[in-house]
Amino acid sequence: MSDTSHNTYFDGGVQSLGFENASGRATVGVIAPGTYDFNTDGAELMTVVAGVLEAIVDGESDWETYPKGSRFEVPASSHFQVRAETPSAYLCEFL
Amino acid sequence: MSDTSHNTYFDGGVQSLGFENASGRATVGVIAPGTYDFNTDGAELMTVVAGVLEAIVDGESDWETYPKGSRFEVPASSHFQVRAETPSAYLCEFL
Repeated sequence: MSDTSHNTYFDGGVQSLGFENASGRATVGVIAPGTYDFNTDGAELMTVVAGVLEAIVDGESDWETYPKGSRFEVPASSHFQVRAETPSAYLCEFL
Repeated sequence: MSDTSHNTYFDGGVQSLGFENASGRATVGVIAPGTYDFNTDGAELMTVVAGVLEAIVDGESDWETYPKGSRFEVPASSHFQVRAETPSAYLCEFL
């Protein structure tokens, strides 16, 4: 038994595993090739763990590229788009 | 639809999401508190993405501690034990 939750979005195009520890609540996930729209409740820090992600965060107009090891922050109560050309993995920390 | 696979081990104590890209086959996963035994087919490179893992890899006698950002390699056709005191996340790359 564990508290790890499995979440599936966009017909499996985005899947994540949720957990919580002393650093707070977070998920690790995999993004299949495609473009996806998300809305945030709280602010999130996204770190690319494998592959490459592109994102447009609220208020930006162009896609920014985030290779493995890079990160971007998404404000609370906002909207962002994520795009992957190759299956890519991320860590999402809820701030 | 996607090729991302969700795998559950040890009654959910270890869960992973499998994917493949130009870098090869890999999983991201979450390890709930506990101690787990694994056998490898091919060699694996484990990178701690969140939390802390401890491991005993084939041939070692003591637990080694791997904090977030550190990594350890597991040989092909071997046995290793992993222990977590707090929910922790990893990237496992199949070499």
